[in-house]
Amino acid sequence: MRIVAALGGNALLKRGETLSAAAQRETVAQAAVQLASLVAAGHSLIVTHGNGPQVGLLALQAEAGPPASAQPLDDLDAESEGWIGYALEQELANALPPGTEIATLLTRIEVKSDDPAFAAPSKPIGPVYNEETAKWLAAQRGWQVAPDGQFWRRVVASPAPVAVLNETSIIRLMEAGTLVICAGGGGIPVLRDAAGKWRGAEAVIDKDAASALLAARLHVDLFMMLTDVEAVYLDYGTSAQRPLRQARPEDLAGGQFAAGSMGPKVAAACRFASETGRPAAIGRLQDAGAILAGTAGTRIC
Amino acid sequence: MRIVAALGGNALLKRGETLSAAAQRETVAQAAVQLASLVAAGHSLIVTHGNGPQVGLLALQAEAGPPASAQPLDDLDAESEGWIGYALEQELANALPPGTEIATLLTRIEVKSDDPAFAAPSKPIGPVYNEETAKWLAAQRGWQVAPDGQFWRRVVASPAPVAVLNETSIIRLMEAGTLVICAGGGGIPVLRDAAGKWRGAEAVIDKDAASALLAARLHVDLFMMLTDVEAVYLDYGTSAQRPLRQARPEDLAGGQFAAGSMGPKVAAACRFASETGRPAAIGRLQDAGAILAGTAGTRIC
Repeated sequence: MRIVAALGGNALLKRGETLSAAAQRETVAQAAVQLASLVAAGHSLIVTHGNGPQVGLLALQAEAGPPASAQPLDDLDAESEGWIGYALEQELANALPPGTEIATLLTRIEVKSDDPAFAAPSKPIGPVYNEETAKWLAAQRGWQVAPDGQFWRRVVASPAPVAVLNETSIIRLMEAGTLVICAGGGGIPVLRDAAGKWRGAEAVIDKDAASALLAARLHVDLFMMLTDVEAVYLDYGTSAQRPLRQARPEDLAGGQFAAGSMGPKVAAACRFASETGRPAAIGRLQDAGAILAGTAGTRIC
Repeated sequence: MRIVAALGGNALLKRGETLSAAAQRETVAQAAVQLASLVAAGHSLIVTHGNGPQVGLLALQAEAGPPASAQPLDDLDAESEGWIGYALEQELANALPPGTEIATLLTRIEVKSDDPAFAAPSKPIGPVYNEETAKWLAAQRGWQVAPDGQFWRRVVASPAPVAVLNETSIIRLMEAGTLVICAGGGGIPVLRDAAGKWRGAEAVIDKDAASALLAARLHVDLFMMLTDVEAVYLDYGTSAQRPLRQARPEDLAGGQFAAGSMGPKVAAACRFASETGRPAAIGRLQDAGAILAGTAGTRIC
């Protein structure tokens, strides 16, 4: 089977851990072993990944660097594709049989300049803060901040992805049997300006939305979102909470799922399943094989 | 013709200008127009580029960021491939006819752990300093520093590239007619550790050396190094200085060319010409068309 496997931020950095190059590398090495087991079972992978903690750290570093040197968010998105993509490629090369061809492609993704998301930042990036610190930083730096679970984080615009600009190259390499890493961090958001020229957008695209678009365009057999949560839960956080094993997109419409965590994953799964008639799945990275077999995670089809 | 076009740091950032995202974008847009004119003339391009100022800035930002978050140099090399590669891809998309396929590939390049370069750092990165500041920074941060022209800069190890690890994908896309951007900053240096695993190397590979290796492996018709210097000069800096229009590799052996500026370019040109029997050329970015026609720059064959 051809599979788009989208790695959540928590598959790249353990939940609650502070981001460092060393911590990321260790977690990525563990993720690579899981992905390699899918390849060993005969499947072809296209790997995508998030960048929330990473692009947030790069933004902090850029602001702390020499005066007037800080890059805009689209440049930082591109840097995060380089940083995380390299880590994934290296650890996959270590986990896969020698000679397995792996290619990591930068991925520009088109968004629309009139997307309402630009007026309502919602995507959390970077480290967590307490409310007081977050509000102080917002005032100091012109950030927008919002609650994320029990903490607060910086939030940035997250416009909808409308086209994967280098999908021809992704398809060409995929069809040649290459393991392709692409659309990192939801891709680099770009838009056409009034003169028709491509310009970067100060935004971070949701990686599940971008991955669903990519998976649909590639007509893959399965779209898997791999995170550190065992399944989609109904009535999550109540005494009646129970894992959802299988559902149809229409069962989940108007859902009850948290914005910023399970909500975007469920929406992305429904979008892919509705557009293609093929299954999407959500579950834990270490259950990847069982999710494929239909014995773990949540399957939407 | 198939051409590897290697862009020097001064084709990405005007000589003497302070690096910022905006300054880089403007210079890259001008470079893209020059490269697009080669494509319009019917040639196929593989574009490589340097990263000296950029990886130096990323290192300064990383050190100024949150404690214990600074990435090692191989990660910063990867980030610079993302940052610069994206800028080139975007501006080439603006300069080329709509629908031209462009792909930017991260490129891991193998170096050897026993390369003597690891004991003798020589590659300048980052901004220029006066001697006093450079020596103070070296003491503060454990850097090595060295003179670079009239200023001082940080220097890092620059091991020899021995293999382009994803050349199969580069060749596949090139043969499909895609404009490929790759081997940015000389590639991301990686080596096999004692256990046979790939590990990053704290180094920056010379981009001309990496580009020459790539050009030879791809069997391209011409290897062009584009910078802001009109040609290779004989007796440079003396009253007898004169541009060299054409030479054979054997004429240039044991040469008189400056380490860190023209020396690596001449060595890379000689290597490509000797190994392949095909021509290499060195000249100004804005003369690219004339260099191709043989009426500007220096040609080595």
